[in-house]
Amino acid sequence: MLDKIDLNQTMEKHSYKQELKDLEKRLAFLQTKIQELGIPVICAFEGWSASGKGTLIGRVLYPLDPRHFNVYTMDKINEDSLMRPFLWSFWIKTPSRGRIAIFDKSWNRMILPGAAEKWKLSAAVKSNYFSDVNAFEKQLIDDGTLIIKLFLHISKDEQKKRFKDLEKNPDANWRVNQHDWEQNKEYDNVLKHFNEMIHQTNFSWSPWHIIESNDSKFATIKIYKTIISRVEEEIVRRQVRAEAVETPFVTAEEEDSLRPPKVEAFKVNILSAVDLSKTVKEGEYKHKLSYLQGKIAEQGFKMYTHRKSVAIVYEGWDAAGKGGNIKRLTEQLDPRAYEVVPIAAPSKEELSHHYLWRFYNKMPKDGHLAIFDRSWYGRVMVERIEGFTPEADWRRAYKEINDMEAHLSNHGVIIFKFWLHIDQDEQLARFESRKNDPSKQYKITDEDWRNREKWDEYVTAVDEMLLLTNTRNAPWTVVESNDKKYARIKTLEIVTNELDKQLK
Amino acid sequence: MLDKIDLNQTMEKHSYKQELKDLEKRLAFLQTKIQELGIPVICAFEGWSASGKGTLIGRVLYPLDPRHFNVYTMDKINEDSLMRPFLWSFWIKTPSRGRIAIFDKSWNRMILPGAAEKWKLSAAVKSNYFSDVNAFEKQLIDDGTLIIKLFLHISKDEQKKRFKDLEKNPDANWRVNQHDWEQNKEYDNVLKHFNEMIHQTNFSWSPWHIIESNDSKFATIKIYKTIISRVEEEIVRRQVRAEAVETPFVTAEEEDSLRPPKVEAFKVNILSAVDLSKTVKEGEYKHKLSYLQGKIAEQGFKMYTHRKSVAIVYEGWDAAGKGGNIKRLTEQLDPRAYEVVPIAAPSKEELSHHYLWRFYNKMPKDGHLAIFDRSWYGRVMVERIEGFTPEADWRRAYKEINDMEAHLSNHGVIIFKFWLHIDQDEQLARFESRKNDPSKQYKITDEDWRNREKWDEYVTAVDEMLLLTNTRNAPWTVVESNDKKYARIKTLEIVTNELDKQLK
Repeated sequence: MLDKIDLNQTMEKHSYKQELKDLEKRLAFLQTKIQELGIPVICAFEGWSASGKGTLIGRVLYPLDPRHFNVYTMDKINEDSLMRPFLWSFWIKTPSRGRIAIFDKSWNRMILPGAAEKWKLSAAVKSNYFSDVNAFEKQLIDDGTLIIKLFLHISKDEQKKRFKDLEKNPDANWRVNQHDWEQNKEYDNVLKHFNEMIHQTNFSWSPWHIIESNDSKFATIKIYKTIISRVEEEIVRRQVRAEAVETPFVTAEEEDSLRPPKVEAFKVNILSAVDLSKTVKEGEYKHKLSYLQGKIAEQGFKMYTHRKSVAIVYEGWDAAGKGGNIKRLTEQLDPRAYEVVPIAAPSKEELSHHYLWRFYNKMPKDGHLAIFDRSWYGRVMVERIEGFTPEADWRRAYKEINDMEAHLSNHGVIIFKFWLHIDQDEQLARFESRKNDPSKQYKITDEDWRNREKWDEYVTAVDEMLLLTNTRNAPWTVVESNDKKYARIKTLEIVTNELDKQLK
Repeated sequence: MLDKIDLNQTMEKHSYKQELKDLEKRLAFLQTKIQELGIPVICAFEGWSASGKGTLIGRVLYPLDPRHFNVYTMDKINEDSLMRPFLWSFWIKTPSRGRIAIFDKSWNRMILPGAAEKWKLSAAVKSNYFSDVNAFEKQLIDDGTLIIKLFLHISKDEQKKRFKDLEKNPDANWRVNQHDWEQNKEYDNVLKHFNEMIHQTNFSWSPWHIIESNDSKFATIKIYKTIISRVEEEIVRRQVRAEAVETPFVTAEEEDSLRPPKVEAFKVNILSAVDLSKTVKEGEYKHKLSYLQGKIAEQGFKMYTHRKSVAIVYEGWDAAGKGGNIKRLTEQLDPRAYEVVPIAAPSKEELSHHYLWRFYNKMPKDGHLAIFDRSWYGRVMVERIEGFTPEADWRRAYKEINDMEAHLSNHGVIIFKFWLHIDQDEQLARFESRKNDPSKQYKITDEDWRNREKWDEYVTAVDEMLLLTNTRNAPWTVVESNDKKYARIKTLEIVTNELDKQLK
């Protein structure tokens, strides 16, 4: 691919100046459209050392309003990034709707020699690398993000010449180091790696644009034209989609046939098969609780020394006992080693990002435990049932969530997911008792009663969720919780047993 | 102080168990009150090595719901913290209303030998250290935060014994290092430093509580009792205040006499004295702009290599030309070295913190430039005029803002503050032209017209603000902006001249 590119293309100074002026105006105008339409835009610059990334990024930003873009340099990796799944660094920087994020070097380059070591990628991440990064792009694009990937290409001779010029300049010679010279010496080899990177991550929905950069004027104009045409395409695409809503070309039946097959076809009744009569005796409870809490406290310490992170998701019916269960799990842990993350309705800022953004922001660092009191599964439960999210979007979420959990798992995060299950009678009894106890009244709201009326809808949604997101590395456990004490022992047992295996 | 403490106090096991149970229940109940009343609580644990901070924090948290507290260990300093004013690390972790933040080691300990080096404190920070930390506490307390400072005190012999016990334990011996032994050897010296720390930061509104910790049972009970009584006091204080609103004991006149003296007494007419007829000729503008942009681009590079950070605040009338001015200032800068921070109405999360919290979150790292498009000065302008903030609170803000800027400046941040000034006629002309230009209509809103009606109120507020927050290290410049080009040259000249002096 890259070896077939004609790098001798140049641009004449006079026509460059004229053309650039028009393109600058056009791009400035498009930025206001991006804001108006609320399009999140990511522009990733990749390419050879000394291909001019810094200068060319500066030229592209020249006509733009600096209040609405951010620039991120990704080759300085800090401690925080190294202690998380590598996509975390990119996820937390994804732009909100209407903003532009420029990445100087991107998530696509771990294939290059040395990159995997620099970013401390685990073996599992390395072997799943392309599926992880492609899933990342797909998730953002499906959510409406425009991703523009530019590869700045220069020839071996041109690179050598630029290094030499830099070295001659006393103000700039610090910019050339041994790694750069190695890249030049190994040019043909590195080219193969770049080819592989492009080949593996080039899709119709997320294409690479090769920018011939031996001549920086030519490169500037091509970058402008590429960005402008991608933005214009995106604007047209949105207009078409917006118009399509008003003038449907397909009948309701036809539309139905276009949808992904519904899961009902495979329906199993997971929740209805749960035996809620399980209990534990008081003496046994006390004994086991104390034993298991001691055990998890030790494991918490091991987690820290082994630099292993753990994520525990708690989902379940209102009043199923999530709070008390979490309390028992954490009671004997060193409070510096864990964090409980309560998930409520998203804020305005959270709503202006991809729905997974706020969860990536809260992922545990290596050596730490994060407990999610409700989680990303709200997408396929409350958002589905309350109609906050269109069907196509929440259906897609099963795969997106599996992809995210796979990425965490590849990095080495140990994941537990608990559905705390009670029946309708038990819930009613707990609601009533909260209503009548002044010290617990704050725990019960009108929303709880409204949710209760939708019990059957929730059963369908939860059954589907359990079926479609129960993966090897992030399995679900339904916890029989009519007896709260039984439930606490069960979650503690599952967590401690698994940690026993994983923290050897 | 510490040397006068009786460290031989102990507690008998039986009464300990009984008392603890009651205190746990009480604290658990108080946590629900903290949530209900929306009190942000900070609990800071200080003390000797091996005084049992970790264990005692665990014991205090035992009865609490982990969904509503966070624990921060402050002795692991990461790169991000070192590249910012040292209070930044604490500011960004201040709890929102109703949450509890536990700090394992606090902002109070830079006085200890070695701490200043570890945190890389500048000379200016060191010499202003106590005024900075006391201002920090005062700001939070005035905003309603309850700060509880506990000092865990043990004797030299007890510390020695604990180190020896830890060293004998193969699972724990990594916890004792050379620094710990040095502290023991230098006990009397370190004690003097602790005494100094307590002496300098002990106030009626933020007292220290010394916890005799040779006996950990005694310490546990005393910590519980201290926290409980501080929380209860705070609850009573709030009730009294809430009741006072309904049953005023003072007449309106009396109340007026209790207020801080109003600034009108010193009123000078700053804005009305500004000469708005200043202009720049087109040829001169082009020439100077190009020269100054080249200069600031070079300085941007120097900022980076000198690890100096710069904060520029833009305030001014609607349509005064902030956007265009910022654009010209940044146009030639390396986009990786600066960030423009647009400030809009605060989000719900931001509102649940101290108003300065969101600005601390955006403070530039060393070597970087942050431009605030509107800023913390909203507190004494829009919040004052729209009545969002009670008078006592925005009046206090002048000092709070000066304190914050002093802290930034002590760390080495170079601060510029610009008020972009135009007159009413010029604003009207710009509003009209925006209204009539389809590509600019999005820039003008009903709110702009409403603000315009309050012109005179803003003049009073801005005059006061300029007078009361014009400090040596963070001075204001009023920029005559009826001629936008004149304004751009003036801001660029002021910034580049000052940077010339500071980046030698």
